[in-house]
Amino acid sequence: MSQRVSNFSAGPATLPYDVLTKTAEDIVNFKESGIGLMEISHRSSEFQGVIDEAERLLRELMGIPENYKVLFLQGGASSQFFMIPMNMLSGGKKATYLNTGTWAKKAIAEARLFGDIEVPYSSEKENYNRVPDQHEYTIADDSEYLYLVSNNTIFGTQFQQFPDTGKMLISDMSSDILSRPVDVSRFGLIFAGAQKNLGPAGVTVVIVREDLLSRCPDTTPTMLKYRTHADKGSMFNTPPCLAIYVVYRVLQWLNGLGGVEAIQKINRQKAATLYEIMDSGDYYRGHADPQSRSQMNVAFNLPTPELEAKFIADAAAQGFKGLKGHRSIGGCRASIYNAFSLEGVTELAAFMERFANENPA
Amino acid sequence: MSQRVSNFSAGPATLPYDVLTKTAEDIVNFKESGIGLMEISHRSSEFQGVIDEAERLLRELMGIPENYKVLFLQGGASSQFFMIPMNMLSGGKKATYLNTGTWAKKAIAEARLFGDIEVPYSSEKENYNRVPDQHEYTIADDSEYLYLVSNNTIFGTQFQQFPDTGKMLISDMSSDILSRPVDVSRFGLIFAGAQKNLGPAGVTVVIVREDLLSRCPDTTPTMLKYRTHADKGSMFNTPPCLAIYVVYRVLQWLNGLGGVEAIQKINRQKAATLYEIMDSGDYYRGHADPQSRSQMNVAFNLPTPELEAKFIADAAAQGFKGLKGHRSIGGCRASIYNAFSLEGVTELAAFMERFANENPA
Repeated sequence: MSQRVSNFSAGPATLPYDVLTKTAEDIVNFKESGIGLMEISHRSSEFQGVIDEAERLLRELMGIPENYKVLFLQGGASSQFFMIPMNMLSGGKKATYLNTGTWAKKAIAEARLFGDIEVPYSSEKENYNRVPDQHEYTIADDSEYLYLVSNNTIFGTQFQQFPDTGKMLISDMSSDILSRPVDVSRFGLIFAGAQKNLGPAGVTVVIVREDLLSRCPDTTPTMLKYRTHADKGSMFNTPPCLAIYVVYRVLQWLNGLGGVEAIQKINRQKAATLYEIMDSGDYYRGHADPQSRSQMNVAFNLPTPELEAKFIADAAAQGFKGLKGHRSIGGCRASIYNAFSLEGVTELAAFMERFANENPA
Repeated sequence: MSQRVSNFSAGPATLPYDVLTKTAEDIVNFKESGIGLMEISHRSSEFQGVIDEAERLLRELMGIPENYKVLFLQGGASSQFFMIPMNMLSGGKKATYLNTGTWAKKAIAEARLFGDIEVPYSSEKENYNRVPDQHEYTIADDSEYLYLVSNNTIFGTQFQQFPDTGKMLISDMSSDILSRPVDVSRFGLIFAGAQKNLGPAGVTVVIVREDLLSRCPDTTPTMLKYRTHADKGSMFNTPPCLAIYVVYRVLQWLNGLGGVEAIQKINRQKAATLYEIMDSGDYYRGHADPQSRSQMNVAFNLPTPELEAKFIADAAAQGFKGLKGHRSIGGCRASIYNAFSLEGVTELAAFMERFANENPA
């Protein structure tokens, strides 16, 4: 354990160490069965137990109502960008999207292949430094849903609360699912690639209201209909068993910690520790507008690109890895998802203060 | 190691033990980096090294020509059923499919959503007990490709050689890829879900000729175009990193063993050991026509359903697991993919002879 580094990677991201060691054991010999986790049939009672428990824990942790299905799919969040409009906007129906970052923009482009897409708000010109209040845009009455990315990984912005407009919400929660309580009943569909707050790359969780399952045309390929997977408990075909298993272990870990209310408190402390440094001087400048600050990804700049390069290199030498900002905005970024410890954030904060003192602008 | 059982599961299936232990180590601490395998960024040089080496090994082992792309995709082989016609039959073009089993039939249904599909051969009425010789069917001149499933997992049949008709082949090799040499240049596209001969569930390998990449319409969702993934080295979005890593370890193992020629010899010995029992008496009856016998899946019946149930139970009690046949044909099935040892097959054969003596019909 002593050799673990502080991994601020934006995703795939750090996981609880206990999840890693349990996975390693089960990969060699799953629950003493004499067969490894990757070798057991997805139709076995052993694996059925894993996927059932993953779903049960997710339902409990998020308070998912009975009339929602939980699906474990492949293809990443990027596949949801087209599956949602393909399933929901048949016949060129209208939907409303908020353009708050790279992933929102990509989702808009895919949705336009299927429907009439309105984008009444965009922060693209300000390099996506904020998300809107709901009075900043209007939604057409005949819009099927309002789509938003709850947390923008690259730009470090996050909706502090979700729009309350009466319109059904659909949200990409890839980078903040389970980081705070969410009223699922306001959403028609929530999805999240696992590799930030849920587990490893290779599985995407979709939570979808049952009445939406029958909206897609018959000509949709079988694998692209939500109904196909809902009807078969995510086992229409062989699911990504190992990735689902790791999600189950992560959910178990979060449950043991006290659930989303407990982790939200820790997440707030972690983020506040870093934002306080930005607010207490002008050496570190946060990218996000203060009202839009993310608790998951803290994007910031130093006085010069040269100092940023030195900061990233010095940090890495001291075991703080993955602090380089996304290539589309540069600068620095600390991704501090659920599994990243408060202790690690405190250590980074101390390093940041030392670095600022030793490397004046 | 002593607690390992003989796992005849059809997929997910047994993996080399050495692959399991190496994976377990790297999951906790990848190459002594202080970060686990599931936690490293897919954009890191460490992961780039893994995917590059997986591709290099696959190219070397299969002799894949330069003008083919190797893709690591999500969604299982089932997603290829629609992606192939979606990418290749735009505008309702014609293609020819051979109906030799459950997976062929499913592929035909998906292809019909996109093109004009001819099925000049089907063994469905004989419960898919054989695959055709090429003189048993004709292919329309304007057919874009001939689609076949090289090995039919459920029914235990396999093409001993591929049709030589001048028509471009497309093949689902999910259950026999890398089990024998294949002349890739005769194929436009080969695909395989990993969970039988390549690794764990969660990644599908696609080998596609470059000139076919531009056939799909612009209105195809980005994630469903082969070109998207080909242009980005399978990293347009976050790939299933862990599954790709395990494929890399399996390929390394196969390479160390001497490659496909070496494994083909062992596979022939394994299959012959079991088929000899069937040919030497009438207690065990093979499902497949002798000319169509699979080297990967040996499907057979005992004199009565009662004896089959006793056989499966007694075998399990002695550590031979997963011998129950697929629910669609019943009976018994031994899946003996690359990673299943000759020693394990010999032990099963001895058990089969003992069982037949002790439980006369």
